[in-house]
Amino acid sequence: MRQLSLEAAQKLVHEKLLKHGCSSENARSVAQALTLAEADGLKGHGLSRLPSYVAQLKAGKVDGAAVPQATLKAPGVINIDAAHGFAFPALDLALARLGEPAAGCGLAVATIRRSHHSGAAGHPVERLAEQGLVAMFFANTPAAMAPWGGRKPLFGTNPIAFACPLEGMPPLVIDLSLSKVARGNILQARQKGAPIPEGWALDKEGHPTTDADAALAGTMVPMGDAKGTALALMVELLAAGLTGAKFASEASSFLDDKGGPPGTGQLILVLDPDKLGGPGTRAHCARLALAVSDEPGARLPGRRRLQARAAAQREGVGITADLAAQLEAL
Amino acid sequence: MRQLSLEAAQKLVHEKLLKHGCSSENARSVAQALTLAEADGLKGHGLSRLPSYVAQLKAGKVDGAAVPQATLKAPGVINIDAAHGFAFPALDLALARLGEPAAGCGLAVATIRRSHHSGAAGHPVERLAEQGLVAMFFANTPAAMAPWGGRKPLFGTNPIAFACPLEGMPPLVIDLSLSKVARGNILQARQKGAPIPEGWALDKEGHPTTDADAALAGTMVPMGDAKGTALALMVELLAAGLTGAKFASEASSFLDDKGGPPGTGQLILVLDPDKLGGPGTRAHCARLALAVSDEPGARLPGRRRLQARAAAQREGVGITADLAAQLEAL
Repeated sequence: MRQLSLEAAQKLVHEKLLKHGCSSENARSVAQALTLAEADGLKGHGLSRLPSYVAQLKAGKVDGAAVPQATLKAPGVINIDAAHGFAFPALDLALARLGEPAAGCGLAVATIRRSHHSGAAGHPVERLAEQGLVAMFFANTPAAMAPWGGRKPLFGTNPIAFACPLEGMPPLVIDLSLSKVARGNILQARQKGAPIPEGWALDKEGHPTTDADAALAGTMVPMGDAKGTALALMVELLAAGLTGAKFASEASSFLDDKGGPPGTGQLILVLDPDKLGGPGTRAHCARLALAVSDEPGARLPGRRRLQARAAAQREGVGITADLAAQLEAL
Repeated sequence: MRQLSLEAAQKLVHEKLLKHGCSSENARSVAQALTLAEADGLKGHGLSRLPSYVAQLKAGKVDGAAVPQATLKAPGVINIDAAHGFAFPALDLALARLGEPAAGCGLAVATIRRSHHSGAAGHPVERLAEQGLVAMFFANTPAAMAPWGGRKPLFGTNPIAFACPLEGMPPLVIDLSLSKVARGNILQARQKGAPIPEGWALDKEGHPTTDADAALAGTMVPMGDAKGTALALMVELLAAGLTGAKFASEASSFLDDKGGPPGTGQLILVLDPDKLGGPGTRAHCARLALAVSDEPGARLPGRRRLQARAAAQREGVGITADLAAQLEAL
């Protein structure tokens, strides 16, 4: 393991992205996002993404110089074209723009199309909640899950995130993808030559499998089975249907340099708690959060990440020697 | 079994509610809602609710003469006070009012507080989608599920519903509650003296149980385990936190005449698909719906309900002799 301060990690990502054709502004945005995910312990959305990001820059699958464009389509609706660049600059633009229409209408929505991997879904909603807004985020991802009872992967693992400002506490942040487990768990099992538990994945015929290779050729099991599949369809419609983005089954991988741009979508919704519920709303919500954190054995979603982030700010992040070598070589 | 036409069912509910102090307008609204749920095969939200509704009217737990009040709090935000009446008149008011702010802002939200059992969550969103709007609905319900790892029920089974207009097809409607199975399944097992499958419920110490009595004294298992619990917390904050309604753990039962009014909440959000994604949006969404319905073994959520509804319109609905006798006696 090699220990890197967050500043050093961000600088390293920034430099490698600049070297491979990113604009300075885009490199800064992506470096911040990957470093924050790494700090939060979300390694699947952290520095480990950089090699595939650079490969996609080299192949022209993602445009490092893209400038996302925002259009106000209605007093509460912002359309953003990510222009086949990274998702993070488009998300930054959405976050900078959503406050004004939300102040006017009491709520607002940003759609993002021609986008890419949006990383840790909890981060954009957390930043909005720090501005005093309740936020929901929906993203579609390349095909991974089949409609319940079927075999063809028509939905991504499609994260949902939610954040709510709380009186006297950091915002509550919920961030979950709709597969039962992350695909990374199956990749790890394959590397070790180990079987996977039944219930994680289906083979390409739609049958339960404990074989990692068969699982990777098949589909992921949705969390909550049929109900989770219905939620994945809902997210596909919100994040790609309403944004004009590509559906999961049409999108190329976020992980390799094959094919054209993924062209996936995201939708961010914000609600002004003072307009919806009046001035006591944050205190009312905090009462529920306290009841959860006071319950023996339970914990508030997202609190482990904040602890990991605080530790990373003090001590930096540890990356494997293998990843360190890969990053240096870029 | 006794067969009733939908008209006869609706008339029966309407008469019994009028007799027990409902205003004519409220009786009509509730009768329509229960009859449509019965027609859709959702018996847990259908005519079987009438005896407990009448008991609650008699006890003053629900106010049959309540007049829900709407206030436009911001150009896109409507606050509705259901005034401790039934939820359906408040939902009808929300549906009648949401179109105008949605046309102005491109999206709108209605909060409902001091409310009650909101029935089949798919129905209000379906009606909004028939008006051309994408709709999401969140409701909290009395305490049924514990935070993951804990024992105290702090969340209801908290339904989420979603509907989306589709080009050339009826709207897609998703409607799910966040417990793994409905509580009615456990009540049925108790009646039969049968055990319940492991994984449905926890006893009051938070341990898995197959005993129906222990399950009813404990908590329901969330669909998708920890992830579903996080969604239940999200719905609790949206439907009660942002509306100023009572949280699940503070709400009295929807099913008996004990205690004060439940005072739960609902939140309805609408998005104008033409403003979000442009004029091709309904056709884009329909392509995904067709891909799902064309997949062998899979089906679109909500389509079974439409078949049940069509059959009920032709043939009426069958109710048990026991329920028929209970309804007559009211």
